[in-house]
Amino acid sequence: MDHQENLTAYVAAFVAELVKTGVKDVVISPGSRSTPMAMVMAEHPDLRIHIHIDERSAAFFALGIAKSLRKPVAILCTSGTAAANYYPAIIEAHYSRVPLIVLTADRPHELRDVGAPQAIDQIHLFGKHVKWFVEMAPPEKTDEMLRYARSVCARAAAIALRSPSGPVHLNFPFREPLVPNVGKEDLFDLPVRSDGYVSVETGELTLSEEKYEELAGILSQYDKGIIVCGPLDEEFFAENITKLASALKFPILADPLSQLRSGKHSKDYIVDAYDTFLRNSDCKKALKPDIIIRFGAMPVSKALSIFIKENMNIPQFVIDGGAGWRDPAATTSNMIYCNETEFCKSIAKYVSEKNHNQFLDKWLEINKLTKTKLSKINDIEELSEGKLFYQLADLIPDGATLFVGNSMPIRDLDTFFHVNDKSIRIMANRGANGIDGIISTAIGAAAVSQPMYLIVGDLTFFHDLNGLLAAKLYDINIKILLVNNNGGGIFSFLPQASQPKYFELLFGTPIDLNFEYAVRMYNGKFDKITSWEQFNSSFLRNMDDSGLSVMEISTDRDRNLIEHRELWNYVSREISNKINGVS
Amino acid sequence: MDHQENLTAYVAAFVAELVKTGVKDVVISPGSRSTPMAMVMAEHPDLRIHIHIDERSAAFFALGIAKSLRKPVAILCTSGTAAANYYPAIIEAHYSRVPLIVLTADRPHELRDVGAPQAIDQIHLFGKHVKWFVEMAPPEKTDEMLRYARSVCARAAAIALRSPSGPVHLNFPFREPLVPNVGKEDLFDLPVRSDGYVSVETGELTLSEEKYEELAGILSQYDKGIIVCGPLDEEFFAENITKLASALKFPILADPLSQLRSGKHSKDYIVDAYDTFLRNSDCKKALKPDIIIRFGAMPVSKALSIFIKENMNIPQFVIDGGAGWRDPAATTSNMIYCNETEFCKSIAKYVSEKNHNQFLDKWLEINKLTKTKLSKINDIEELSEGKLFYQLADLIPDGATLFVGNSMPIRDLDTFFHVNDKSIRIMANRGANGIDGIISTAIGAAAVSQPMYLIVGDLTFFHDLNGLLAAKLYDINIKILLVNNNGGGIFSFLPQASQPKYFELLFGTPIDLNFEYAVRMYNGKFDKITSWEQFNSSFLRNMDDSGLSVMEISTDRDRNLIEHRELWNYVSREISNKINGVS
Repeated sequence: MDHQENLTAYVAAFVAELVKTGVKDVVISPGSRSTPMAMVMAEHPDLRIHIHIDERSAAFFALGIAKSLRKPVAILCTSGTAAANYYPAIIEAHYSRVPLIVLTADRPHELRDVGAPQAIDQIHLFGKHVKWFVEMAPPEKTDEMLRYARSVCARAAAIALRSPSGPVHLNFPFREPLVPNVGKEDLFDLPVRSDGYVSVETGELTLSEEKYEELAGILSQYDKGIIVCGPLDEEFFAENITKLASALKFPILADPLSQLRSGKHSKDYIVDAYDTFLRNSDCKKALKPDIIIRFGAMPVSKALSIFIKENMNIPQFVIDGGAGWRDPAATTSNMIYCNETEFCKSIAKYVSEKNHNQFLDKWLEINKLTKTKLSKINDIEELSEGKLFYQLADLIPDGATLFVGNSMPIRDLDTFFHVNDKSIRIMANRGANGIDGIISTAIGAAAVSQPMYLIVGDLTFFHDLNGLLAAKLYDINIKILLVNNNGGGIFSFLPQASQPKYFELLFGTPIDLNFEYAVRMYNGKFDKITSWEQFNSSFLRNMDDSGLSVMEISTDRDRNLIEHRELWNYVSREISNKINGVS
Repeated sequence: MDHQENLTAYVAAFVAELVKTGVKDVVISPGSRSTPMAMVMAEHPDLRIHIHIDERSAAFFALGIAKSLRKPVAILCTSGTAAANYYPAIIEAHYSRVPLIVLTADRPHELRDVGAPQAIDQIHLFGKHVKWFVEMAPPEKTDEMLRYARSVCARAAAIALRSPSGPVHLNFPFREPLVPNVGKEDLFDLPVRSDGYVSVETGELTLSEEKYEELAGILSQYDKGIIVCGPLDEEFFAENITKLASALKFPILADPLSQLRSGKHSKDYIVDAYDTFLRNSDCKKALKPDIIIRFGAMPVSKALSIFIKENMNIPQFVIDGGAGWRDPAATTSNMIYCNETEFCKSIAKYVSEKNHNQFLDKWLEINKLTKTKLSKINDIEELSEGKLFYQLADLIPDGATLFVGNSMPIRDLDTFFHVNDKSIRIMANRGANGIDGIISTAIGAAAVSQPMYLIVGDLTFFHDLNGLLAAKLYDINIKILLVNNNGGGIFSFLPQASQPKYFELLFGTPIDLNFEYAVRMYNGKFDKITSWEQFNSSFLRNMDDSGLSVMEISTDRDRNLIEHRELWNYVSREISNKINGVS
């Protein structure tokens, strides 16, 4: 059998099967060794090909698509350090449970570890951060090896997707010559089982009816219960958790990434200002629960984390369909491995519905008071980070996605972005909480879901500037709110801020860049915001623009710290007054 | 013992010892978890602190310093994907044998794998690409643990440096609160052995005198021998290899990264145009050797690699002081693990010196003819990549370093940059030959060695645009020759170019960026070159400028291919005529 025929048939079988598993998007970084796979993929009529020069951005771009679609996306690169650039996004995918199929081209065996160019050890390159690694067999066009390529492909997609979702890595040894024969009419004809070689049905973790009934019985005994929903992105979770909360009459403390603060479900039990009022010790005493039920990853709010820790002596149930161990303070008493939506549905059936719950009322009352008082942020006339986030829920159009950077933006969102009746999907990279790859992840999501707003700080914006290239090359619409406080704003809130000697050098790290240049290079529109009037009009004006649009809001790190502190102190005083009966 | 005291003493002992091992430079990326190490390092009077926001660039920047100084450099970052961004540079360091001390901060044990923020599995994060990994003990201020911190540090530096040099990784679990007490007067006082806890003397591999004599006897028997010097950067290698060549009367085929084409040593035996004339089969027949002695990594030239492979039936000696296996075509007959400089010195003592060697004359004659004919490139009036490289040896000032990008630049340098009597150090990232991190590596080297010229293509320039920030923040002088052919120029030379349907999409990948914007953002000077006159005057004018200066030379990928092909064909005809006696 001739080399090209072996190569082409094997790769085409793999790619055809990949499409059958439901993969629609492939992000390719240019290279020579990956030629057979890249050309065969480009030939497939049902694959969308996205090209990205910088592999680090490419992998985050794919992560964004996969997050948005909740489906596996494939990435492909050549041999060598190209693949190593995937590492940050792979780790993020691993911890945030996003399915990625990582395909790397490698030198064939005889060119490994012998000083051949661009040859590095790619076996288990991503260590424990992928769910599955396969060193693929060299290409062969025998029935057996075509079946092998197809079944490995189907299996890889299934592993990536099954809960907890995550990345898988297949490493392909390709020998020269590398150009496949893509001119064949029947390139993607599958000789057997033309609908796909093996379809994988994966169930979700679910408990027995007896166990649900038992757990419902336990939960029903409590009056003082709270539900904590951290980052979680399941399609039907919102309506089912709100039904369960309604039956139990428990408040739901909803992290911005729980997807519960926006949407069409009932918001009656949603508590969204806890990050502020749980800083107050009177409040924590008044709201002390007897049981906590927790879903999703750990919430963003440090105040809430501390509250959970302080209540370590009560039963704490953690429901995790991905069977992880999301319990940083070791406070969990019952770890329940069960699909979250299924759990809510099944428990609700057996719960003896309460009519009224004073404890719930107290939570809702304080939450309402807190939000009323927090609205004071609107009085600030200068450009302010808090006010910006406060206004987002009003400004952002229904149906949009809001992608939020780590460090300050996600925290400000937590504090200032409250319940609303729009459908706004909130996204962030909260697997490893890095400041890397945020632009690319958001633009990847924007490629499949519109409209898209991204809000990031200047260091995060800088870290992934290369990610903007995709918006230019593919005319992807993305609106970026760039909060530029010239450095690492979050450090002002940390104990490091008490060390003036090294603060600016090691933590503040101002980089003094005029980002307008970068935005122009990528054919973007740049608005430097100097007032709230201008911000509002720019925001509205940009709404229907296509391509890249960046609004830069310059703020001051020191003033931002003072604004936050003063506001929290003010609200805290008001809450204490209320609780202590001072009018 | 109080937490802060434990933390401070342990970290200070480590840092004090690090300085004693000879480390002068530390590249730090801002983060919270790394606070104890960062602050203690900043306090040390003998450490130069370089701050880099983007960890990928940071690690390459450190690589550049370490390459230039031939000494270990430390890098430090916070926990999470920050560390994963180091991976490409670590792999490059591993394969190019550059000493790096990678320090990562990690969550303490109780916060690992439990969903804590920014906590990822950092144990063996870089897999087999580091020479040593240590999960450090938690900080303690006992005599025993301070000795431990110091001896691990000394050992890490020694391992990183010893041949083959490479990266080591130490992972530090730090518990909150993270701020150390750096105000202490005696912070770096070492209670015992104030000159450093343990000094490590590492010998080099060397053979016995009997073995040297035996090998010298074998080599002396050959008339038709050639010496191939690939990438190698040892301080006294040049003078010793030229002495050995003179004794044996063998030509030295000197890769541009062998550091043999420039410098003060004798160039009488240096052959520098083989990449052109070894494309000619008449020539390869006429110059067929009976023995090959090879030093350093595999040379850049594909023509030379093929020539080595075609002569697999003759004895091929490979001398490798790092005891690797640099033999991609499996043609080596004798693998000799011995320090390269020591080998040359010792063998030369026992060689029976020849007076004359016709075989050598033939090599030198064809080399000379080739260079005469190659000079035709100078007649091209348009901007041309080949001509640019041809002119470099004349233009670049004595004592400068020339850093060269991968893909086309290193190949053009090989073809067009010939022997000269200046001291020009040539650098490139030839461990894994990536297009990533080149700007940062060059700027890192520029931080410790001046003047520095970097020549790169547009995709390489784009890939590490973030690297330019260091030049701005630290006013580092670097002159960049940006060869902009709007895409991946090397692919035009590969078989992929025969596939027009997908060529531009997958391989050509034009990105159409006006890089002037980026250069301006980093306060650089940008010259768009439109003619050779302008190039020459800009080059001279920029010579004494400080900071970042970019000269963009726009070329055309198709025309570049034709120019190269036509020139090679022309020279090849001339060589054949000469060999076949046609005047």
